Amino acid sequence: MSCIHRFIAVDGNFRWESISVQGYESSETQGTTVRWLVGPEEGAPSFAMRYFEVESGGFTSLDVHEHDHGVVVLRGRGRVQLGDDTVDVSFGDVVYVSPRELHQFRCVGQEPFGFLCVIPAERSRHE
Amino acid sequence: MSCIHRFIAVDGNFRWESISVQGYESSETQGTTVRWLVGPEEGAPSFAMRYFEVESGGFTSLDVHEHDHGVVVLRGRGRVQLGDDTVDVSFGDVVYVSPRELHQFRCVGQEPFGFLCVIPAERSRHE
Repeated sequence: MSCIHRFIAVDGNFRWESISVQGYESSETQGTTVRWLVGPEEGAPSFAMRYFEVESGGFTSLDVHEHDHGVVVLRGRGRVQLGDDTVDVSFGDVVYVSPRELHQFRCVGQEPFGFLCVIPAERSRHE
Repeated sequence: MSCIHRFIAVDGNFRWESISVQGYESSETQGTTVRWLVGPEEGAPSFAMRYFEVESGGFTSLDVHEHDHGVVVLRGRGRVQLGDDTVDVSFGDVVYVSPRELHQFRCVGQEPFGFLCVIPAERSRHE
């Protein structure tokens, strides 16, 4: 169903009305949270949009999988491993991670590193 | 193929390396440009991410169609018609436009109104 999720910055923290913050901790992921902005809750049939935030010193797991990612950086600075390359990114930079590409996102500096990440709905229903 | 598109702000204008700015003018759309950030060029199989920018006084066409939109505002202020509702939005606000929902985006104020807009690849291949 169509809807608006209002953005709220509280003390410099990124939040959205009616969107919960989910932890994403594992032995391979550190200091990372995820917010599902558009997905199964909204009945989106084809894709999902999530916001990931990685705190200072944190990182996402080193991943390889069948689905792709469309990423746009919203805050902070990050270091992205993309296949054999390592690239620093900041606001507005776009990263396309194609299917079966090795990838990992790290926060660089003190400010949290936050980015939008789009995936196909097919994957989001499977997990 | 995996890739990075670097964001470049020139005199306050939003640009991305190797991404062209396309006009989007018609009798029903005014002062609107689009940049395809992720899509057929990158070989993305499932979705496309575009950046729309609407200049002061401009608007997108009043649309109804089968595909949905996932929208995140990046700059400026906009007024969104979403079904029977009209809502003002700014940085970070998320708009989900479900299939067959009436929608239109207008720039409010002097600064350009810019937003990311995700669509299913199926639609992007058809146009």
